[in-house]
Amino acid sequence: MGERRHAPIIVSVDDERQIRTLHRGPVFDVDIVEWRGRDGTPVEKIVVRHRGAVAVVPELDDGRLVLIRNHRHSLDSWLVEFCAGGVAAGESSADAARRELAEETGYRAGRLDPLGSFFTTPGFSDELMQVFVARDLVAGMPSLEPDERIETLAMDPEELATAIDAGEIRDGKTIAAFRLWEGRRDATSAETST
Amino acid sequence: MGERRHAPIIVSVDDERQIRTLHRGPVFDVDIVEWRGRDGTPVEKIVVRHRGAVAVVPELDDGRLVLIRNHRHSLDSWLVEFCAGGVAAGESSADAARRELAEETGYRAGRLDPLGSFFTTPGFSDELMQVFVARDLVAGMPSLEPDERIETLAMDPEELATAIDAGEIRDGKTIAAFRLWEGRRDATSAETST
Repeated sequence: MGERRHAPIIVSVDDERQIRTLHRGPVFDVDIVEWRGRDGTPVEKIVVRHRGAVAVVPELDDGRLVLIRNHRHSLDSWLVEFCAGGVAAGESSADAARRELAEETGYRAGRLDPLGSFFTTPGFSDELMQVFVARDLVAGMPSLEPDERIETLAMDPEELATAIDAGEIRDGKTIAAFRLWEGRRDATSAETST
Repeated sequence: MGERRHAPIIVSVDDERQIRTLHRGPVFDVDIVEWRGRDGTPVEKIVVRHRGAVAVVPELDDGRLVLIRNHRHSLDSWLVEFCAGGVAAGESSADAARRELAEETGYRAGRLDPLGSFFTTPGFSDELMQVFVARDLVAGMPSLEPDERIETLAMDPEELATAIDAGEIRDGKTIAAFRLWEGRRDATSAETST
Protein backbone atom coordinates (compact mmCIF):
# COMPACT_ATOMS: atom_id res chain seq x y z
CA MET A 1 0.00 0.00 0.00
CA GLY A 2 1.67 3.15 -1.25
CA GLU A 3 2.47 6.24 0.78
CA ARG A 4 -0.24 8.86 0.45
CA ARG A 5 -0.56 12.41 1.67
CA HIS A 6 -3.68 13.40 3.57
CA ALA A 7 -2.74 17.02 4.22
CA PRO A 8 -5.68 19.35 4.77
CA ILE A 9 -6.89 21.41 1.82
CA ILE A 10 -8.59 24.75 2.39
CA VAL A 11 -11.78 24.53 0.38
CA SER A 12 -13.59 27.63 1.47
CA VAL A 13 -13.03 30.53 3.82
CA ASP A 14 -15.59 33.23 4.58
CA ASP A 15 -16.26 35.61 7.45
CA GLU A 16 -18.26 33.01 9.30
CA ARG A 17 -16.81 29.60 8.61
CA GLN A 18 -13.55 28.01 7.57
CA ILE A 19 -13.86 24.63 5.91
CA ARG A 20 -10.94 22.28 5.36
CA THR A 21 -11.14 18.92 3.66
CA LEU A 22 -9.26 16.16 5.51
CA HIS A 23 -10.09 13.37 3.12
CA ARG A 24 -11.64 12.89 -0.31
CA GLY A 25 -13.11 9.49 -1.13
CA PRO A 26 -15.40 7.90 -3.69
CA VAL A 27 -18.40 7.84 -1.34
CA PHE A 28 -17.73 10.78 0.97
CA ASP A 29 -15.30 13.55 1.93
CA VAL A 30 -14.41 14.48 5.50
CA ASP A 31 -14.39 18.24 6.26
CA ILE A 32 -13.39 20.18 9.36
CA VAL A 33 -15.63 23.23 9.78
CA GLU A 34 -14.59 25.99 12.20
CA TRP A 35 -16.62 28.99 13.28
CA ARG A 36 -17.37 31.09 16.36
CA GLY A 37 -20.32 30.28 18.61
CA ARG A 38 -22.81 32.79 20.06
CA ASP A 39 -20.39 33.81 22.83
CA GLY A 40 -17.35 34.03 20.52
CA THR A 41 -16.01 30.59 21.49
CA PRO A 42 -14.30 28.82 18.60
CA VAL A 43 -16.25 25.76 17.50
CA GLU A 44 -14.79 22.93 15.43
CA LYS A 45 -16.88 20.19 13.88
CA ILE A 46 -16.11 17.26 11.64
CA VAL A 47 -18.62 16.81 8.83
CA VAL A 48 -18.70 13.72 6.65
CA ARG A 49 -19.97 15.05 3.28
CA HIS A 50 -21.78 12.09 1.84
CA ARG A 51 -22.97 11.58 -1.76
CA GLY A 52 -26.11 9.84 -0.48
CA ALA A 53 -27.12 6.30 0.33
CA VAL A 54 -29.98 3.90 -0.28
CA ALA A 55 -31.53 1.04 1.66
CA VAL A 56 -33.90 -1.57 0.27
CA VAL A 57 -36.72 -3.52 1.95
CA PRO A 58 -37.14 -6.49 -0.41
CA GLU A 59 -40.52 -8.30 -0.17
CA LEU A 60 -40.66 -11.89 -1.37
CA ASP A 61 -43.92 -13.11 -2.93
CA ASP A 62 -44.61 -15.17 0.25
CA GLY A 63 -44.47 -11.99 2.39
CA ARG A 64 -41.04 -12.56 3.92
CA LEU A 65 -38.45 -9.78 3.83
CA VAL A 66 -34.91 -10.34 2.57
CA LEU A 67 -32.08 -9.24 4.87
CA ILE A 68 -28.34 -9.74 4.89
CA ARG A 69 -25.79 -10.79 7.47
CA ASN A 70 -23.10 -8.23 6.77
CA HIS A 71 -19.56 -8.23 8.12
CA ARG A 72 -18.81 -4.66 9.19
CA HIS A 73 -15.17 -3.60 9.16
CA SER A 74 -15.99 -0.61 11.37
CA LEU A 75 -17.15 -3.01 14.13
CA ASP A 76 -15.19 -6.14 13.20
CA SER A 77 -18.45 -8.05 13.62
CA TRP A 78 -21.61 -9.12 11.78
CA LEU A 79 -24.89 -7.21 11.65
CA VAL A 80 -28.28 -8.26 10.28
CA GLU A 81 -29.40 -5.44 7.99
CA PHE A 82 -31.44 -4.51 4.99
CA CYS A 83 -29.16 -4.23 1.97
CA ALA A 84 -27.84 -0.72 1.42
CA GLY A 85 -25.02 1.25 -0.07
CA GLY A 86 -23.80 4.53 -1.47
CA VAL A 87 -25.18 6.26 -4.53
CA ALA A 88 -22.49 6.34 -7.24
CA ALA A 89 -21.65 9.48 -9.23
CA GLY A 90 -24.27 10.06 -11.94
CA GLU A 91 -26.56 7.37 -10.56
CA SER A 92 -30.17 7.91 -9.43
CA SER A 93 -31.13 6.66 -5.99
CA ALA A 94 -33.54 4.15 -7.57
CA ASP A 95 -30.75 2.81 -9.81
CA ALA A 96 -28.46 2.57 -6.76
CA ALA A 97 -31.17 0.65 -4.87
CA ARG A 98 -31.61 -1.84 -7.74
CA ARG A 99 -27.83 -2.23 -8.07
CA GLU A 100 -27.17 -2.75 -4.34
CA LEU A 101 -30.05 -5.23 -4.07
CA ALA A 102 -28.70 -7.24 -7.01
CA GLU A 103 -25.05 -7.07 -5.91
CA GLU A 104 -25.64 -7.97 -2.27
CA THR A 105 -28.52 -10.48 -2.53
CA GLY A 106 -28.72 -11.46 -6.21
CA TYR A 107 -32.39 -10.43 -6.40
CA ARG A 108 -33.59 -8.33 -9.34
CA ALA A 109 -36.56 -6.09 -8.50
CA GLY A 110 -39.51 -6.10 -10.91
CA ARG A 111 -40.95 -3.17 -8.99
CA LEU A 112 -39.35 -0.52 -6.78
CA ASP A 113 -41.25 2.13 -4.76
CA PRO A 114 -39.87 4.88 -2.49
CA LEU A 115 -40.72 4.47 1.23
CA GLY A 116 -39.16 7.64 2.61
CA SER A 117 -35.78 8.94 3.68
CA PHE A 118 -33.82 10.04 6.74
CA PHE A 119 -30.46 11.44 7.78
CA THR A 120 -28.42 8.66 9.41
CA THR A 121 -26.20 10.77 11.70
CA PRO A 122 -26.81 14.52 11.35
CA GLY A 123 -24.48 15.11 14.32
CA PHE A 124 -21.45 14.65 12.08
CA SER A 125 -22.65 13.76 8.58
CA ASP A 126 -25.06 14.93 5.91
CA GLU A 127 -25.68 11.35 4.74
CA LEU A 128 -29.26 11.01 3.47
CA MET A 129 -30.57 7.43 3.37
CA GLN A 130 -33.33 6.94 0.80
CA VAL A 131 -35.40 3.83 1.45
CA PHE A 132 -37.19 1.75 -1.19
CA VAL A 133 -39.42 -1.29 -1.10
CA ALA A 134 -38.60 -3.86 -3.80
CA ARG A 135 -41.18 -6.36 -5.07
CA ASP A 136 -41.60 -8.94 -7.87
CA LEU A 137 -38.15 -10.27 -7.00
CA VAL A 138 -36.29 -12.63 -9.30
CA ALA A 139 -33.44 -14.60 -7.68
CA GLY A 140 -29.93 -14.46 -9.16
CA MET A 141 -26.30 -14.58 -8.13
CA PRO A 142 -24.85 -11.88 -5.84
CA SER A 143 -21.74 -10.06 -7.01
CA LEU A 144 -19.80 -8.89 -3.95
CA GLU A 145 -17.01 -6.34 -3.76
CA PRO A 146 -13.58 -7.72 -2.74
CA ASP A 147 -14.02 -6.27 0.76
CA GLU A 148 -17.61 -7.49 1.31
CA ARG A 149 -18.67 -10.57 3.31
CA ILE A 150 -22.43 -10.95 3.04
CA GLU A 151 -24.97 -13.77 3.51
CA THR A 152 -28.65 -13.51 2.57
CA LEU A 153 -31.55 -14.51 4.84
CA ALA A 154 -35.35 -14.04 4.84
CA MET A 155 -37.60 -13.27 7.79
CA ASP A 156 -41.32 -12.90 8.34
CA PRO A 157 -42.19 -9.29 9.24
CA GLU A 158 -43.49 -10.51 12.63
CA GLU A 159 -40.21 -12.35 13.23
CA LEU A 160 -38.25 -9.20 12.37
CA ALA A 161 -40.45 -7.10 14.70
CA THR A 162 -39.78 -9.58 17.51
CA ALA A 163 -36.03 -9.51 16.78
CA ILE A 164 -36.04 -5.69 16.96
CA ASP A 165 -37.93 -5.76 20.27
CA ALA A 166 -35.45 -8.34 21.59
CA GLY A 167 -32.48 -6.11 20.70
CA GLU A 168 -31.19 -8.57 18.10
CA ILE A 169 -31.20 -6.05 15.24
CA ARG A 170 -28.38 -3.61 15.98
CA ASP A 171 -28.41 -1.56 12.76
CA GLY A 172 -30.18 1.80 13.04
CA LYS A 173 -31.16 2.20 9.37
CA THR A 174 -32.70 -1.29 9.40
CA ILE A 175 -34.88 -0.42 12.42
CA ALA A 176 -35.85 2.95 10.89
CA ALA A 177 -36.49 1.48 7.42
CA PHE A 178 -38.66 -1.27 8.94
CA ARG A 179 -40.65 1.41 10.82
CA LEU A 180 -41.29 3.19 7.50
CA TRP A 181 -42.31 -0.14 5.95
CA GLU A 182 -44.70 -0.90 8.87
CA GLY A 183 -46.30 2.54 8.52
CA ARG A 184 -46.88 1.97 4.81
CA ARG A 185 -48.26 -1.56 5.42
CA ASP A 186 -50.67 -0.35 8.12
CA ALA A 187 -51.86 2.53 5.91
CA THR A 188 -52.41 0.12 2.99
CA SER A 189 -54.32 -2.42 5.10
CA ALA A 190 -56.47 0.39 6.57
CA GLU A 191 -57.32 1.52 3.03
CA THR A 192 -58.09 -2.05 1.97
CA SER A 193 -60.40 -2.64 4.95
CA THR A 194 -62.50 0.52 4.41
CA MET B 1 -8.78 30.44 14.51
CA GLY B 2 -5.20 29.25 14.66
CA GLU B 3 -3.32 27.21 12.11
CA ARG B 4 -3.39 23.54 12.98
CA ARG B 5 -1.74 20.52 11.47
CA HIS B 6 -3.88 17.55 10.60
CA ALA B 7 -1.10 15.34 9.27
CA PRO B 8 -1.82 11.61 9.45
CA ILE B 9 -0.41 9.64 12.36
CA ILE B 10 0.35 5.95 11.97
CA VAL B 11 -1.37 4.36 14.94
CA SER B 12 -1.05 0.70 14.17
CA VAL B 13 0.47 -1.44 11.43
CA ASP B 14 0.16 -5.22 11.23
CA ASP B 15 0.31 -7.81 8.47
CA GLU B 16 -3.35 -7.35 7.66
CA ARG B 17 -4.32 -3.76 8.24
CA GLN B 18 -2.72 -0.33 8.36
CA ILE B 19 -4.59 2.23 10.42
CA ARG B 20 -3.86 5.98 10.29
CA THR B 21 -5.63 8.59 12.37
CA LEU B 22 -6.64 11.66 10.36
CA HIS B 23 -8.28 13.54 13.21
CA ARG B 24 -8.59 13.32 16.97
CA GLY B 25 -11.54 15.05 18.61
CA PRO B 26 -13.37 15.10 21.92
CA VAL B 27 -16.24 12.95 20.65
CA PHE B 28 -14.62 10.86 17.92
CA ASP B 29 -11.46 10.19 15.92
CA VAL B 30 -11.34 9.65 12.17
CA ASP B 31 -9.17 6.73 11.01
CA ILE B 32 -8.19 5.51 7.57
CA VAL B 33 -7.95 1.71 7.50
CA GLU B 34 -6.22 -0.01 4.58
CA TRP B 35 -6.05 -3.74 3.85
CA ARG B 36 -6.19 -6.16 0.94
CA GLY B 37 -9.50 -7.72 -0.13
CA ARG B 38 -10.10 -11.37 -1.00
CA ASP B 39 -8.61 -10.96 -4.49
CA GLY B 40 -5.61 -8.90 -3.29
CA THR B 41 -7.18 -5.57 -4.26
CA PRO B 42 -6.20 -2.76 -1.87
CA VAL B 43 -9.19 -1.54 0.13
CA GLU B 44 -9.31 1.80 1.94
CA LYS B 45 -12.06 2.75 4.38
CA ILE B 46 -12.68 5.72 6.60
CA VAL B 47 -13.86 4.79 10.07
CA VAL B 48 -15.22 7.35 12.52
CA ARG B 49 -14.19 5.91 15.93
CA HIS B 50 -16.90 7.19 18.22
CA ARG B 51 -16.93 7.21 22.03
CA GLY B 52 -20.65 6.38 22.04
CA ALA B 53 -23.89 8.33 21.99
CA VAL B 54 -27.23 8.40 23.76
CA ALA B 55 -30.77 9.34 22.75
CA VAL B 56 -33.66 9.97 25.11
CA VAL B 57 -37.42 9.44 24.64
CA PRO B 58 -38.88 11.71 27.37
CA GLU B 59 -42.46 10.89 28.40
CA LEU B 60 -44.50 13.66 30.00
CA ASP B 61 -47.07 12.68 32.64
CA ASP B 62 -49.86 13.43 30.11
CA GLY B 63 -48.40 10.85 27.67
CA ARG B 64 -46.85 13.31 25.22
CA LEU B 65 -43.23 12.86 24.16
CA VAL B 66 -40.70 15.71 24.29
CA LEU B 67 -38.74 16.41 21.11
CA ILE B 68 -36.44 19.19 19.98
CA ARG B 69 -36.13 21.32 16.87
CA ASN B 70 -32.39 21.17 16.39
CA HIS B 71 -30.33 23.30 14.01
CA ARG B 72 -27.87 20.93 12.34
CA HIS B 73 -24.62 22.46 11.11
CA SER B 74 -23.97 19.40 8.93
CA LEU B 75 -27.18 20.15 6.97
CA ASP B 76 -27.52 23.88 7.60
CA SER B 77 -31.15 23.21 8.47
CA TRP B 78 -33.48 22.22 11.31
CA LEU B 79 -34.53 18.68 12.23
CA VAL B 80 -37.14 17.47 14.71
CA GLU B 81 -35.41 14.88 16.89
CA PHE B 82 -35.29 13.22 20.25
CA CYS B 83 -32.57 14.82 22.35
CA ALA B 84 -29.23 13.07 22.03
CA GLY B 85 -25.51 13.56 22.31
CA GLY B 86 -22.13 12.01 22.85
CA VAL B 87 -21.02 10.18 25.98
CA ALA B 88 -18.22 12.15 27.67
CA ALA B 89 -15.01 10.54 28.91
CA GLY B 90 -15.62 8.75 32.22
CA GLU B 91 -19.38 9.17 31.96
CA SER B 92 -21.92 6.30 31.97
CA SER B 93 -24.48 6.22 29.17
CA ALA B 94 -27.28 6.78 31.72
CA ASP B 95 -25.48 9.85 33.10
CA ALA B 96 -24.99 11.14 29.55
CA ALA B 97 -28.70 10.64 28.85
CA ARG B 98 -29.71 12.59 31.98
CA ARG B 99 -27.21 15.36 31.15
CA GLU B 100 -28.24 15.72 27.48
CA LEU B 101 -31.93 15.73 28.43
CA ALA B 102 -31.36 18.46 31.02
CA GLU B 103 -29.03 20.54 28.82
CA GLU B 104 -31.17 20.42 25.68
CA THR B 105 -34.71 20.50 27.12
CA GLY B 106 -34.31 21.56 30.77
CA TYR B 107 -36.16 18.44 31.97
CA ARG B 108 -34.74 16.44 34.88
CA ALA B 109 -35.66 12.73 34.75
CA GLY B 110 -36.98 11.11 37.93
CA ARG B 111 -36.73 7.75 36.24
CA LEU B 112 -34.61 6.50 33.34
CA ASP B 113 -34.85 3.04 31.71
CA PRO B 114 -32.86 1.57 28.82
CA LEU B 115 -34.88 0.91 25.65
CA GLY B 116 -32.19 -0.66 23.47
CA SER B 117 -29.32 0.39 21.24
CA PHE B 118 -28.19 0.45 17.62
CA PHE B 119 -25.27 1.42 15.43
CA THR B 120 -26.14 4.63 13.59
CA THR B 121 -23.95 4.19 10.48
CA PRO B 122 -21.87 1.00 10.55
CA GLY B 123 -20.79 1.69 6.96
CA PHE B 124 -18.27 4.25 8.17
CA SER B 125 -18.58 4.56 11.95
CA ASP B 126 -18.67 2.43 15.09
CA GLU B 127 -21.03 4.90 16.80
CA LEU B 128 -23.36 3.01 19.15
CA MET B 129 -26.54 4.90 20.08
CA GLN B 130 -27.97 3.81 23.44
CA VAL B 131 -31.63 4.77 23.84
CA PHE B 132 -33.38 5.52 27.12
CA VAL B 133 -36.93 6.38 28.09
CA ALA B 134 -37.15 9.17 30.69
CA ARG B 135 -40.16 9.57 33.01
CA ASP B 136 -41.23 11.59 36.08
CA LEU B 137 -39.93 14.71 34.33
CA VAL B 138 -39.41 17.98 36.20
CA ALA B 139 -39.18 21.09 34.02
CA GLY B 140 -36.18 23.41 34.27
CA MET B 141 -34.02 25.71 32.17
CA PRO B 142 -32.00 24.31 29.24
CA SER B 143 -28.28 25.05 29.14
CA LEU B 144 -27.14 25.05 25.52
CA GLU B 145 -23.59 24.87 24.17
CA PRO B 146 -22.39 27.99 22.31
CA ASP B 147 -22.86 26.20 18.98
CA GLU B 148 -26.33 24.78 19.73
CA ARG B 149 -29.70 26.19 18.54
CA ILE B 150 -32.49 24.12 20.01
CA GLU B 151 -36.22 24.56 20.71
CA THR B 152 -38.35 22.13 22.70
CA LEU B 153 -41.73 20.75 21.61
CA ALA B 154 -44.08 17.97 22.73
CA MET B 155 -46.09 15.58 20.57
CA ASP B 156 -48.65 12.85 21.19
CA PRO B 157 -47.21 9.46 20.17
CA GLU B 158 -49.99 9.15 17.52
CA GLU B 159 -49.05 12.58 16.15
CA LEU B 160 -45.38 11.54 15.97
CA ALA B 161 -46.32 8.27 14.23
CA THR B 162 -48.31 10.25 11.67
CA ALA B 163 -45.42 12.68 11.17
CA ILE B 164 -43.04 9.76 10.55
CA ASP B 165 -45.45 8.20 8.03
CA ALA B 166 -45.78 11.60 6.31
CA GLY B 167 -41.98 11.91 5.96
CA GLU B 168 -41.84 14.92 8.29
CA ILE B 169 -39.33 13.32 10.70
CA ARG B 170 -36.03 13.19 8.83
CA ASP B 171 -33.72 12.00 11.62
CA GLY B 172 -32.91 8.29 11.51
CA LYS B 173 -32.18 7.80 15.23
CA THR B 174 -35.51 9.45 16.11
CA ILE B 175 -37.43 7.03 13.85
CA ALA B 176 -35.47 4.03 15.18
CA ALA B 177 -35.77 5.15 18.83
CA PHE B 178 -39.52 5.67 18.40
CA ARG B 179 -39.79 2.15 16.95
CA LEU B 180 -38.06 0.77 20.06
CA TRP B 181 -40.43 2.84 22.24
CA GLU B 182 -43.50 1.52 20.33
CA GLY B 183 -42.30 -2.06 20.75
CA ARG B 184 -41.92 -1.56 24.51
CA ARG B 185 -45.32 0.15 24.77
CA ASP B 186 -47.08 -2.62 22.84
CA ALA B 187 -45.39 -5.31 24.97
CA THR B 188 -46.39 -3.49 28.17
CA SER B 189 -50.02 -3.02 27.08
CA ALA B 190 -50.19 -6.70 26.04
CA GLU B 191 -48.97 -7.67 29.54
CA THR B 192 -51.44 -5.30 31.17
CA SER B 193 -54.39 -6.64 29.18
CA THR B 194 -53.73 -10.32 29.99
